[in-house]
Amino acid sequence: MFAPGGIGNVGPGLDILGCAVTGAGDTVRATRSASAGIRIDAPGHPDLPCDPELHTSAIAAASVLRMAGAHDVGVTLNVVKGLPLAGGQGGSSASAVAGAVAVNAMIGNPLGRVDLLRAALSAEERVAGRHIDNLAPCLFGGMLLIRSIEPLDLVSIPVPDALRIVLVHPRQQLRTAEARGVLPSLIPRETALAQASAVAGLVAAFCSGDLPALRRAVDDRIAEPARAPLLPGFDAAKRAALDAGALGCSISGAGPTVFAFADSDALADALSRAMCSAYAAAGIVATARIARVDPVGARVVVAA
Amino acid sequence: MFAPGGIGNVGPGLDILGCAVTGAGDTVRATRSASAGIRIDAPGHPDLPCDPELHTSAIAAASVLRMAGAHDVGVTLNVVKGLPLAGGQGGSSASAVAGAVAVNAMIGNPLGRVDLLRAALSAEERVAGRHIDNLAPCLFGGMLLIRSIEPLDLVSIPVPDALRIVLVHPRQQLRTAEARGVLPSLIPRETALAQASAVAGLVAAFCSGDLPALRRAVDDRIAEPARAPLLPGFDAAKRAALDAGALGCSISGAGPTVFAFADSDALADALSRAMCSAYAAAGIVATARIARVDPVGARVVVAA
Repeated sequence: MFAPGGIGNVGPGLDILGCAVTGAGDTVRATRSASAGIRIDAPGHPDLPCDPELHTSAIAAASVLRMAGAHDVGVTLNVVKGLPLAGGQGGSSASAVAGAVAVNAMIGNPLGRVDLLRAALSAEERVAGRHIDNLAPCLFGGMLLIRSIEPLDLVSIPVPDALRIVLVHPRQQLRTAEARGVLPSLIPRETALAQASAVAGLVAAFCSGDLPALRRAVDDRIAEPARAPLLPGFDAAKRAALDAGALGCSISGAGPTVFAFADSDALADALSRAMCSAYAAAGIVATARIARVDPVGARVVVAA
Repeated sequence: MFAPGGIGNVGPGLDILGCAVTGAGDTVRATRSASAGIRIDAPGHPDLPCDPELHTSAIAAASVLRMAGAHDVGVTLNVVKGLPLAGGQGGSSASAVAGAVAVNAMIGNPLGRVDLLRAALSAEERVAGRHIDNLAPCLFGGMLLIRSIEPLDLVSIPVPDALRIVLVHPRQQLRTAEARGVLPSLIPRETALAQASAVAGLVAAFCSGDLPALRRAVDDRIAEPARAPLLPGFDAAKRAALDAGALGCSISGAGPTVFAFADSDALADALSRAMCSAYAAAGIVATARIARVDPVGARVVVAA
């Protein structure tokens, strides 16, 4: 089962706007084993735990078994990480979603997608907090506005075909928990209203296909100012992207990955080069990829 | 010159989302007079000042003359108020806009609309604060998202033809200054993000024409909870509107007018009756009107 990476906190959309992104993702294979419980055969990365209590794939898989009443089922998980750890590309979400969906498929799909989201959230909230702006797009695909988690209320935001997403990943790690720790708990009213206007402007730009308006709407007054100081090279990379004509640039998820929007492959290429050069000038190795919004979300890539 | 009333703070869109509304408005006639300066021939209501330093029409008109360099021009203003005073239907904005546009027309339209907005804002900020969610729709028409005042950045939000607006005006007055005084200056982050999601959900619902989604999106966590206690009968009227099937209900502007959305004349009628009955049960006389978003804004109704 494959689950794509994505962008959480799209610009000003902290905790409330996210999208799935084509290309890299995590893959989880679930196979029945003789004795009840979850085992991890391969955690996907040397730095990830084999303890099923600690790996998001296994936590989500265990939630699925519990919610389905399949207490006596044994599962072995084989995780292949295509997404960077603590990279800001929704890696923990992708592992959780892929684990939940893979185990659900293995036992005959007793749970619907809303329950699968809940199962994945039980894993995500252990490592990254109770938010679903990565999880929901990873599972359902597309660009989603999170209106409410309980009850679940998601709004699918249409995205123009021309939209390209440049993801630049500097060789840095930033744990989501650390990146959340710097967020202010109280926001001045003027800032809160400006942020609301920016998210609404972003949604209006996507809905109307007015891509140039994106550039003004990717304007995060809450998370980006708090997190940028944790991310060496970010300010220079953002400046380089905007100077090269990006239709907005900000931190992807909790970082350190940086995203920029473009409306053509040529512009996306130019942004990719400009941002990597800016990181290089700051002595930071960075890799880039060019993607689109993934409209599909989690999907079978190998028969379970 | 006629300028329509409107709704500021559409639902969660405090200071950032407003619309012009068909029907009642304020009308200002500007005529040249021999001696320089602004005089008010008729202020439009016994409770409104004849002092040109205090009446929004005259303050805006004076700004127009100053911005146009027409220091030696004399103007007499005749104001007809169609909107209630301190009613929450954008009355101070309509008077300011009509005054600015009327005087500009009288001297040959030297100023463009952006300058006229600035002139009207110089009046509005004296009585209601520096926000343009009433002013901008009153001048330009439609439903507008305020992205920025300086530089001016407005996003026009398309509104489905079926949208009906019920405006219920209880016989109460609430000065905008008083209603602003109760707004919290610091907002918990979770509340700020929920509010941003609600505004974005509202914009998405308008853009996609998904009117039922409006009902969930008209969800103001900042202004309505602070102002509702100042407005006897509001809670009951809102409950009555929602029980009768309103597609959202909240305070119009700073109140006391309450608005509710409907998708048909029949539903609008039902909401109007239900809300007036709720006020009546609370011992409050209320009047209702049913309108639409006014796409035009300020316009000539009599040759200047």
